[in-house]
Amino acid sequence: MPRPVCLFTGQWADLPLEKLCEKAKEFGYDGLELACWGDHFDVQRALTEPKYCAKHWQLLNDYGLAALAISNHLVGQAVCDPIDERHKAILSPKVWGDGKPEGVRQRATAEMIDTIKAARKFFDAAPEAVQKYLKERTKRTVVVGFTGSPIWHLLYSFPPVSKSQIEAGYASFAAPCFALEVHPTEIAFDIVSTRRTLAALGDHPRFGLNFDPSHFGYQGVDYLAFLREFGPRVWNVHVKDVWWADHGMEAGVFGGHTNFGDDGRFWDFRSPGRGKIDFQGIIRTLNHSGYQGPLTVEWEDPMMDREFGAGEAEHFVRGLDFPRSQRAFDAAFSEG
Amino acid sequence: MPRPVCLFTGQWADLPLEKLCEKAKEFGYDGLELACWGDHFDVQRALTEPKYCAKHWQLLNDYGLAALAISNHLVGQAVCDPIDERHKAILSPKVWGDGKPEGVRQRATAEMIDTIKAARKFFDAAPEAVQKYLKERTKRTVVVGFTGSPIWHLLYSFPPVSKSQIEAGYASFAAPCFALEVHPTEIAFDIVSTRRTLAALGDHPRFGLNFDPSHFGYQGVDYLAFLREFGPRVWNVHVKDVWWADHGMEAGVFGGHTNFGDDGRFWDFRSPGRGKIDFQGIIRTLNHSGYQGPLTVEWEDPMMDREFGAGEAEHFVRGLDFPRSQRAFDAAFSEG
Amino acid sequence: MPRPVCLFTGQWADLPLEKLCEKAKEFGYDGLELACWGDHFDVQRALTEPKYCAKHWQLLNDYGLAALAISNHLVGQAVCDPIDERHKAILSPKVWGDGKPEGVRQRATAEMIDTIKAARKFFDAAPEAVQKYLKERTKRTVVVGFTGSPIWHLLYSFPPVSKSQIEAGYASFAAPCFALEVHPTEIAFDIVSTRRTLAALGDHPRFGLNFDPSHFGYQGVDYLAFLREFGPRVWNVHVKDVWWADHGMEAGVFGGHTNFGDDGRFWDFRSPGRGKIDFQGIIRTLNHSGYQGPLTVEWEDPMMDREFGAGEAEHFVRGLDFPRSQRAFDAAFSEG
Amino acid sequence: MPRPVCLFTGQWADLPLEKLCEKAKEFGYDGLELACWGDHFDVQRALTEPKYCAKHWQLLNDYGLAALAISNHLVGQAVCDPIDERHKAILSPKVWGDGKPEGVRQRATAEMIDTIKAARKFFDAAPEAVQKYLKERTKRTVVVGFTGSPIWHLLYSFPPVSKSQIEAGYASFAAPCFALEVHPTEIAFDIVSTRRTLAALGDHPRFGLNFDPSHFGYQGVDYLAFLREFGPRVWNVHVKDVWWADHGMEAGVFGGHTNFGDDGRFWDFRSPGRGKIDFQGIIRTLNHSGYQGPLTVEWEDPMMDREFGAGEAEHFVRGLDFPRSQRAFDAAFSEG
Amino acid sequence: MPRPVCLFTGQWADLPLEKLCEKAKEFGYDGLELACWGDHFDVQRALTEPKYCAKHWQLLNDYGLAALAISNHLVGQAVCDPIDERHKAILSPKVWGDGKPEGVRQRATAEMIDTIKAARKFFDAAPEAVQKYLKERTKRTVVVGFTGSPIWHLLYSFPPVSKSQIEAGYASFAAPCFALEVHPTEIAFDIVSTRRTLAALGDHPRFGLNFDPSHFGYQGVDYLAFLREFGPRVWNVHVKDVWWADHGMEAGVFGGHTNFGDDGRFWDFRSPGRGKIDFQGIIRTLNHSGYQGPLTVEWEDPMMDREFGAGEAEHFVRGLDFPRSQRAFDAAFSEG
Amino acid sequence: MPRPVCLFTGQWADLPLEKLCEKAKEFGYDGLELACWGDHFDVQRALTEPKYCAKHWQLLNDYGLAALAISNHLVGQAVCDPIDERHKAILSPKVWGDGKPEGVRQRATAEMIDTIKAARKFFDAAPEAVQKYLKERTKRTVVVGFTGSPIWHLLYSFPPVSKSQIEAGYASFAAPCFALEVHPTEIAFDIVSTRRTLAALGDHPRFGLNFDPSHFGYQGVDYLAFLREFGPRVWNVHVKDVWWADHGMEAGVFGGHTNFGDDGRFWDFRSPGRGKIDFQGIIRTLNHSGYQGPLTVEWEDPMMDREFGAGEAEHFVRGLDFPRSQRAFDAAFSEG
Repeated sequence: MPRPVCLFTGQWADLPLEKLCEKAKEFGYDGLELACWGDHFDVQRALTEPKYCAKHWQLLNDYGLAALAISNHLVGQAVCDPIDERHKAILSPKVWGDGKPEGVRQRATAEMIDTIKAARKFFDAAPEAVQKYLKERTKRTVVVGFTGSPIWHLLYSFPPVSKSQIEAGYASFAAPCFALEVHPTEIAFDIVSTRRTLAALGDHPRFGLNFDPSHFGYQGVDYLAFLREFGPRVWNVHVKDVWWADHGMEAGVFGGHTNFGDDGRFWDFRSPGRGKIDFQGIIRTLNHSGYQGPLTVEWEDPMMDREFGAGEAEHFVRGLDFPRSQRAFDAAFSEG
Repeated sequence: MPRPVCLFTGQWADLPLEKLCEKAKEFGYDGLELACWGDHFDVQRALTEPKYCAKHWQLLNDYGLAALAISNHLVGQAVCDPIDERHKAILSPKVWGDGKPEGVRQRATAEMIDTIKAARKFFDAAPEAVQKYLKERTKRTVVVGFTGSPIWHLLYSFPPVSKSQIEAGYASFAAPCFALEVHPTEIAFDIVSTRRTLAALGDHPRFGLNFDPSHFGYQGVDYLAFLREFGPRVWNVHVKDVWWADHGMEAGVFGGHTNFGDDGRFWDFRSPGRGKIDFQGIIRTLNHSGYQGPLTVEWEDPMMDREFGAGEAEHFVRGLDFPRSQRAFDAAFSEG
Repeated sequence: MPRPVCLFTGQWADLPLEKLCEKAKEFGYDGLELACWGDHFDVQRALTEPKYCAKHWQLLNDYGLAALAISNHLVGQAVCDPIDERHKAILSPKVWGDGKPEGVRQRATAEMIDTIKAARKFFDAAPEAVQKYLKERTKRTVVVGFTGSPIWHLLYSFPPVSKSQIEAGYASFAAPCFALEVHPTEIAFDIVSTRRTLAALGDHPRFGLNFDPSHFGYQGVDYLAFLREFGPRVWNVHVKDVWWADHGMEAGVFGGHTNFGDDGRFWDFRSPGRGKIDFQGIIRTLNHSGYQGPLTVEWEDPMMDREFGAGEAEHFVRGLDFPRSQRAFDAAFSEG
Repeated sequence: MPRPVCLFTGQWADLPLEKLCEKAKEFGYDGLELACWGDHFDVQRALTEPKYCAKHWQLLNDYGLAALAISNHLVGQAVCDPIDERHKAILSPKVWGDGKPEGVRQRATAEMIDTIKAARKFFDAAPEAVQKYLKERTKRTVVVGFTGSPIWHLLYSFPPVSKSQIEAGYASFAAPCFALEVHPTEIAFDIVSTRRTLAALGDHPRFGLNFDPSHFGYQGVDYLAFLREFGPRVWNVHVKDVWWADHGMEAGVFGGHTNFGDDGRFWDFRSPGRGKIDFQGIIRTLNHSGYQGPLTVEWEDPMMDREFGAGEAEHFVRGLDFPRSQRAFDAAFSEG
Repeated sequence: MPRPVCLFTGQWADLPLEKLCEKAKEFGYDGLELACWGDHFDVQRALTEPKYCAKHWQLLNDYGLAALAISNHLVGQAVCDPIDERHKAILSPKVWGDGKPEGVRQRATAEMIDTIKAARKFFDAAPEAVQKYLKERTKRTVVVGFTGSPIWHLLYSFPPVSKSQIEAGYASFAAPCFALEVHPTEIAFDIVSTRRTLAALGDHPRFGLNFDPSHFGYQGVDYLAFLREFGPRVWNVHVKDVWWADHGMEAGVFGGHTNFGDDGRFWDFRSPGRGKIDFQGIIRTLNHSGYQGPLTVEWEDPMMDREFGAGEAEHFVRGLDFPRSQRAFDAAFSEG
Repeated sequence: MPRPVCLFTGQWADLPLEKLCEKAKEFGYDGLELACWGDHFDVQRALTEPKYCAKHWQLLNDYGLAALAISNHLVGQAVCDPIDERHKAILSPKVWGDGKPEGVRQRATAEMIDTIKAARKFFDAAPEAVQKYLKERTKRTVVVGFTGSPIWHLLYSFPPVSKSQIEAGYASFAAPCFALEVHPTEIAFDIVSTRRTLAALGDHPRFGLNFDPSHFGYQGVDYLAFLREFGPRVWNVHVKDVWWADHGMEAGVFGGHTNFGDDGRFWDFRSPGRGKIDFQGIIRTLNHSGYQGPLTVEWEDPMMDREFGAGEAEHFVRGLDFPRSQRAFDAAFSEG
């Protein structure tokens, strides 16, 4: 049984959910990973309006779609980040408040806890088939997101960063229970920092990872080794591609303060199948580690029309996945 | 006439200058690039003590060494940086003061202006041969260093960074006259950001660049294209090498909050000739652009003994440099 | 709106145009680029027979095809070439005449001027939809072709070639107004020689370029940089692929006087998608530069059946093209 | 006319032939290469039961399939191998007998001679269309298989292997007439050893080769050169893919006594199109050498479901093959 | 303090030890690793002749050489190998006896135990400086060699090899105490098989490894990962280089039953520095793991004169080694 | 015995021979390959002045140099070339005459025949040691040079080149007896064209080849395969290096009508050891084929000072050459 192919809604929050459902169905997706912005999933309404969850499921059902995860990257980012002007644009006025850092962080943390409660309520209201899938294949209910990092800005050790500054960063980290997307600007962004993050949380059983290879490839991180080491903690998978140059460019890996899609960059996100990620190797490694959750397209390609891309991405992922062998191919040599 | 081979003293500030002169001579160097920390070059004493410069030259002369540039990276870093705890360790108590950011930045700026005045005084006291060299080959007196950057911490655009934040960073940038080392954590760190920096300063005629390829190679920046574009602004050259991996590692290009020299990193500095920088291409491109200043070893290799390395580096650079052709090789085909 | 996918008819001149229209439709093409040989487009008849153009359009229309460019490579080659026996086979008896070089060149030039007039007449007779497309997307009427080169045979400078010989070659170059295919054996065959060609013509506003990447890849020319530099002059695009070896072969890049398709060659033309050209990079760069004209398959693969190949090429190009993004993918992060 | 796409049945011997025919038809294959184990082809019954061959053809015919070759790798392996415990599992009790090496080898040889006779009888009973194909395209009746090798275990020359030991191995080799699969563990496993094998048999006109590129790629053998040199001897082609690593792994090319499909191996078999074999180059080279026989999928991929894989393999091979050009692409330049 | 550079005498056993000492001194070596064949080290004489060891040391001392390890690869190979004709050439008549496998294995085992006793006696008789070096730097007395393997000939799993056959091979393995050279034809020949070997011996504290990268490189084994994993068990290091091709050859990695040095091979041993081994990476990794023993050239290059090669190898190794850093290179940034 | 290291004098013809001898000696060369231009070797004087050869040898002897070959590339070029203005600059007024092609070709041919006679006379006057070397090692007296080509300008087959034109070119080719330098612009410039050249001459026993790898590397010709195939015909070896880019450039392999040394080229000649030629592979292959003649530096590097380069080239070649092994490295394993 192949894995369901879903679309993450975060890049489509300008569209009402119903409009997006219509498009997603037309593109061919099995389901959505709902972002907690736009009108895609409203944490507070889910907690307080009795019929909110049921209506959401009805809408999804009308288009033959499932929802298999909830994502709250934007609010999550404010949980551990040093807060500045940039956060105002990604937070609701309620969470931002007066913008004083400590208060922002506290309100963001509260909102993330609410997100987990709301997700619980939402999935409890799911149709039976979805509940069965979550129980048997995914084996859990997943909230995906970011947490920010108190120490990301110290990444290049000049002026020299003391060991204790880094250690303090990890010590202060306390995530709510969910699947962290390993990503630059977060507390965990490669294999080494993921190890330290898990250690800081004492390998908490309700803390997992969202695997998105596009954040590893251009960085020079061995993402198949990541899956081998952290496979059982990988609770959600984003399918996003990235391209990087074979030789030196005008703007290097740090981006040169350019925008995504500008000419002369060393790397850029790409529609799945149009970059350099070895997705076949990922499927083989996921088959080894036993991951049965959705393959969710997070569609980002700054040089391609969004709808064209989301359509071709669905085809790409559908053709990518394959089931694991149940027998040795040379077992038949000793038959008869 | 080959270029002089010098040693930057910044990594040796634990040794008194006299001790270092003795070693540098033994390693085979022609001269030093003096750091403004340790006792290597004291800006305030140079400005205030009448015989300070003459005595310094006497000491250098005793070991048959020249000094062809003055470097003040540490104080310079505080000119434009957002100031935090890390800067305390690299600044003198006088510049740090009470550590309030604005005051630190002002005192650092004043100290950099003093550095330029002190350098002027120092080179005016130089022996005739040095003065002739600076006049004819280098064509100027060079102070090398950093300036810090108000926007480096915004390098990865999440939370999204607005164009105006980047533009404000460049607008606020105002460097004293000297050769900026293009380097991560600085306002200029690749080709694109160097263009913007020069534009922000209106191509000020007393603002040049220190070229150090080790900061470009692992980033994926085309350092030969850098030399082609900015050649006439390159007023000083550091010879430092860097290695990076051919495939994914445990800690990617952002370093995973590891230390230099740790196992599993994607990149690390290396003793010249032991990394991946194409120094031959650099010499050929410097020959095209006409640079005649020193080739100065900035020795950093976290896995090698410092003195062993500085010795082999001198040999490496001596064998690297070669003069430019003065005629076409096939000109002789029409002789006789 | 994707770009139209056309077929260049030059390699099919053994077939009557009607027969070729039938096949092209069956393969799935939107239109043709008509060659001025065989019965595909007859310059003199177009100029002199009142109904010629209308009948041609009728024939195309019967098969649901458009014609978006006229090509006259063969006669064009004789405009600036040193004329020899080889040209006889590619010229009509009328243009060849007695074969004396100067006369051949003059008659070829006159024929090219007639070609431009005939094209003007032909496109003025086009159906309204084609006229609208040419006006809004292509923005001009394009005649494609070669001009030959007075100096191509001097490419390897032994016996040494003087600068003045090359300069004289460029000085003598005077193209009629059209889109020159940048190609070995022509006056422009890489980035440097295209710059000199444009300079020789004073950047004449009616002189453009036909971009065919197959002539750049095996040569070691950066064809994406070509598009970045000359994008606004690229008025027609040929989709042809080329393969080259990863290691040394028996016949090198100069071909060893072998035929296309012989075993042991360093390079050979290939059906689109079966060589090494980065067509995705080309589409992205064309999206940057704004080219909206046709993508025209020039089908050449010496080891593959022509009809099999033209069919798969149409599919390849159809799957290749994609529209440009109209918004930033992360714009939705600040919604709601 | 493209080549027929067949499936080798050796890896499916756990299924009755009828069940496999049903699946193969559904996958889209044109025919089968029948293994002499399971109930796929029984050599002794074919020789002794008058209606066996006709019934087999009836069964194939019911599913619209042809059979274009017979394979007997398992018994063949015992012809020249030093016999040990491993052979018991791949031989019938009758051939194994008391397991004494010399007797096993004699009975295996007799069985291979019977296989050739049975194949003759089987193909004489084939439908007319199959007979015509074999006569005109394949030009012969092919039995495919192994012979084992008396000297494979001496491949690494420590303790030093004398020249005479290798020579004796080749001298003792006497194959029945058939197409040997060039393969590690056999007397011929690369270009050099194939030359020696053919020399040992005096280029016997009834000894040919089965070409399977998966056994060459990971070994570092130039399989296109193999086809160029031995093309006329290649009487059967297996389409099987193989992947190998770009950098060092935990288990090297000798396999580290691991199983196929284990993590950390340097190489593994892969479903066609998912490894590193250049199948396009193979088709082009087969077009040069004139091979017109079947392209037979030998499906082995230890990490993929067998039925999923056999289905996608049929599509892959169908899209791979293309007919050879019958004319020069530039012939049309001198038309009209 | 750099590591001593030694020469392994195994490839020079045609020369009397005294002659070899003279040459080794001239080449510039610090010492020898004595082979137990030729007259280089005679196990039985060392055990039985009272002055044998002292005389040996006297001879070494006359040429200013040390001996830091004893090697007995040839007899060791017979300990676990399936014995055949090849072993006769590498064993003394006494060990070979009547050549019956079980007896040969028993006599070889006894001889290896005697080798360890003889080595003990020999190093107890060493000059004080050597004893001090062995105690402080190497930390043990090392006998190097092979053991053979009962299962090497099963490396390619056709006919299929059962798991239990491999397990039985490891279960039967019982090494005397010494440093096994990890090498094809041995029980351990890559990372996976070394793990199983150590497990089979229960990580016996007197069983170590001789690291020779030339046996890993062409195989596709990650030899730096080998050093990271088994560093503390690496008790001796051989410096031997190997070259392998970038593309397919006539004889693949299994050697095609050719001789070393034949044209057309995929790989061959090379004089140090003339192959593809990353020796700099090895030194850096040995610096991490703390190895302080000798770097011993095992000189093998089938296409180069032996004495020319041994001379250049000494220079190569002398220039390769470098001491580890004792401080962080940026520690000086916070000086004064 | 290593091969002598010589310098070709063609690029130094602006210097009188005596001045060049002085420099060559200082650089460390063993001998010269004398060019027939400048005053280095005057064919007509050698033939007509009785003491010319003896005086030449005296001069060489005064500087301890030998001369092991005579080169006449410039006149040779005119033997088969279509003659034009370029040839005037490389020919003496006597050979050029009135510049009418047929006459130029005849006079050039006569001059080449004289060159061979003059060389015979010159080497007959050589010191005994030189004569012995030529007889025993080189085995012949060698005149090196070009012949030009009647068909080089037809290399790119557009306008289409007929087979008969190429065949006529080879048919008309008739070389005097000497070692042709395989080179673009000549009748032979890769493996395929060298085969045809030898066939055209019926493998004339006095027609050999001068091997210069710099003309093959950037072209994509397998120069080691060249040596394997034509080894016995390689009578002289030039050591010249060449660099080519890893990715596309502004001027491709055809040079874009730029000058050597210009920025942006795909390839350029380089001082030996500073390009991409695998000289070690060349030495190994020459050791296989038995070449014992000189290794002659033809120094060309448009970006490096000529004297600096010729000096370092001598060191490079001296360190490159090594003698062939006289025994198997594992022969000692069966000693005692």
